Amino acid sequence: MTATTDFTHDPAAKSWVSGAADHPDFPVQNLPLAIFSTDDGRIRGGVAIGDYILCLPASAELLTGEARKAAEAADALHLNAMFAMGPAVVTELRHQLFRLLTDTSRQAELEKHLHRDDVTGLHVPFHVGDYTDFYTGIHHAENIGSLFRPDNPLLPNYKYVPIGYHGRSSSIRVSPAQVKRPSGQTKAPDAEAPSFGPSKRLDYELEMAIWIGQGNDLGEPIPVGEAESHIAGISILNDWSARDIQAWEYQPLGPFLAKNFHSTVSPWVVTLDALAPFRSAQPARPEGDPAPMDYLAHDTSAAAFDVQMEVFLSTAKMRAGGDAPHRLSTGPMTAMYWTAAQLVAHHSVGGCNMQTGDLLGTGTLSSGEDGGEGSLIELTRGGKQAIALPNGETRTFLEDGDEVIIRAYAEREGQPRIGLGECRGTVVG
Amino acid sequence: MTATTDFTHDPAAKSWVSGAADHPDFPVQNLPLAIFSTDDGRIRGGVAIGDYILCLPASAELLTGEARKAAEAADALHLNAMFAMGPAVVTELRHQLFRLLTDTSRQAELEKHLHRDDVTGLHVPFHVGDYTDFYTGIHHAENIGSLFRPDNPLLPNYKYVPIGYHGRSSSIRVSPAQVKRPSGQTKAPDAEAPSFGPSKRLDYELEMAIWIGQGNDLGEPIPVGEAESHIAGISILNDWSARDIQAWEYQPLGPFLAKNFHSTVSPWVVTLDALAPFRSAQPARPEGDPAPMDYLAHDTSAAAFDVQMEVFLSTAKMRAGGDAPHRLSTGPMTAMYWTAAQLVAHHSVGGCNMQTGDLLGTGTLSSGEDGGEGSLIELTRGGKQAIALPNGETRTFLEDGDEVIIRAYAEREGQPRIGLGECRGTVVG
Repeated sequence: MTATTDFTHDPAAKSWVSGAADHPDFPVQNLPLAIFSTDDGRIRGGVAIGDYILCLPASAELLTGEARKAAEAADALHLNAMFAMGPAVVTELRHQLFRLLTDTSRQAELEKHLHRDDVTGLHVPFHVGDYTDFYTGIHHAENIGSLFRPDNPLLPNYKYVPIGYHGRSSSIRVSPAQVKRPSGQTKAPDAEAPSFGPSKRLDYELEMAIWIGQGNDLGEPIPVGEAESHIAGISILNDWSARDIQAWEYQPLGPFLAKNFHSTVSPWVVTLDALAPFRSAQPARPEGDPAPMDYLAHDTSAAAFDVQMEVFLSTAKMRAGGDAPHRLSTGPMTAMYWTAAQLVAHHSVGGCNMQTGDLLGTGTLSSGEDGGEGSLIELTRGGKQAIALPNGETRTFLEDGDEVIIRAYAEREGQPRIGLGECRGTVVG
Repeated sequence: MTATTDFTHDPAAKSWVSGAADHPDFPVQNLPLAIFSTDDGRIRGGVAIGDYILCLPASAELLTGEARKAAEAADALHLNAMFAMGPAVVTELRHQLFRLLTDTSRQAELEKHLHRDDVTGLHVPFHVGDYTDFYTGIHHAENIGSLFRPDNPLLPNYKYVPIGYHGRSSSIRVSPAQVKRPSGQTKAPDAEAPSFGPSKRLDYELEMAIWIGQGNDLGEPIPVGEAESHIAGISILNDWSARDIQAWEYQPLGPFLAKNFHSTVSPWVVTLDALAPFRSAQPARPEGDPAPMDYLAHDTSAAAFDVQMEVFLSTAKMRAGGDAPHRLSTGPMTAMYWTAAQLVAHHSVGGCNMQTGDLLGTGTLSSGEDGGEGSLIELTRGGKQAIALPNGETRTFLEDGDEVIIRAYAEREGQPRIGLGECRGTVVG
């Protein structure tokens, strides 16, 4: 998978779709996929081009071969059937769409399948069979670990095992989401017994979502060298967390109610094809770190993705005052200690079967520098240092009415910017 | 829900189906549900009666009202649509089936829908959206905890929080199953670094499966007093565990690859209606234990179920020698520290939405006495004391070719025995 051989990476290519060439997220070089609905009640798959969505099933008549079948398979409530056809088919679909969308002679045929003003919403792009959240953000792991174990923030297994746990599929929702503050048991360190009530330490987590395309059979691990071909693409993930519930419940089996009340994903699936020009070498492991074990060892010279994430906060008072959302921090996808391929290989190495539409969270991605904290618990040093907002408000954790907006994009000199769109959620009491 | 008002609990009732009255598991008082297939390739829902399966969709023509619709909804690959109709509908279906199966004047109409010799298999009864495994077996928690923390086996949250974690849905399989031994990272306590290979400490876990019938909306907790009406029924669960993989990976986020390679369920869903005569008071909490918090407090005078479980081992050598399976231990469902209703209420109290077909494991149910250990790690005291089998073999953990058979049943003087059937799995290398 190299950037240079794929004509869809041609930076000079421009779509005839109005505004697409200058769109900050969705130029013709991106063509991310989503499930969308229109005011006639219809739900189906589409492709973003500028501010428009091209209806996939309606476009099928203009496509040929496997690409046509893929567009037809997108006539569904989820993208599972389409991505289950395999990466070569999705590549071919994007190639044919790229040609049509850059060829002005096809404009008349295609533009009748573009939607904008009649779009009523976007949906969770996949039926998610299983959701796994990893913990690959090493700086996040260090930041969190140092709150509990200042002298020894990383546990001994961290640099050997891609640490992860099973999450809750049923409560995954699409951006923009209303996130109801969870109630649960919490126990103050000095309290005799726990008490019950709404979480007082509600937090966001800045993550990327990795979607599984083709799965594997039970008992048949995916070799790390083939793992990327099982990835459909990536989105943005906010893994909302109730820190006070988590602290009391998580021993010995891990987070449960602290995380399962809601997880928000952005609607657009950006393919690894679209991100190829933004590949980079997986950052070298610090000296002294163990080499990945054989089943995790692969060529990492282009296994990371230069994707930048930004998180913004918009409080109710800010919105009432007409203030723009305030950027809290940024986080790079290259903060992953393990590559996406290593996550897939590890997940399946014991025989666990992955299925199309499975969601892998990267874990919170913090940069390791001030301003690069991927959650409020890190930004506020465990809730001890409130952050000041430009309008005079302060925050340690999220309050009702707070909207968290995560944006992500890939940018590189000489290439059109490839955007992931945004992942928004508002806390409600 | 009292035993006395339901005519299907009449111990004198007998079905006209040959052998059903004396069947150890499936007399007419049980009528558990499953998904089955026949040699014509058809898959659909059925009800056990003796050694036969009554086809639900085919029987619909003999039913009326909602019961008929329920039988029609069982014309599917899973029982989700049928159980989503709600507990009253399923009760009515069982009532009408009971009348037909005990009324000899209906025999001719009904017996053409009975299957036995053409049955080719049973299937996982539900499409499982999410699988949660609890840790309610307090004696198991004490046994496991004492291996790691002899002076303080139970963590401080255990008696306040129904501890649970999210499991893996995709690898749930039905009995009889072939269970491939997982490979993974393990680290001996005295080793410098982990190594990779097949698990050497493969274990079973004796659990019950609780299936969710009707779910709840995100953000709308299920009150504990209504929780039982959200339970479709119960089955047997073997939550296979690779202890050596678990020991190395589980900090800080809980078990992952140690559990997700395979979980086996028994095929028959035994309803709480069928188990009503076997209800008992939830065992009193030991003096000094905290009372359940308000959201978990309910009338527990008949909230437990007198279900007995038994686990048998059949090694390849035993089978070759014609030896019967050897009973390793027994475990009572009343070893649950929390009631089934409390598990449902806790799971949803933060707003998490349950869906029809969700699977809740009880956690390993050990009795707290010798012979009542629900797993090999308990039976062998952490692998230190091998157990002797009657044919001279010994075991600490499972070897390739070992078959684990779990049976469960409810028995009480004056009532026909209600069986759960069995949950079988054979380890393959």
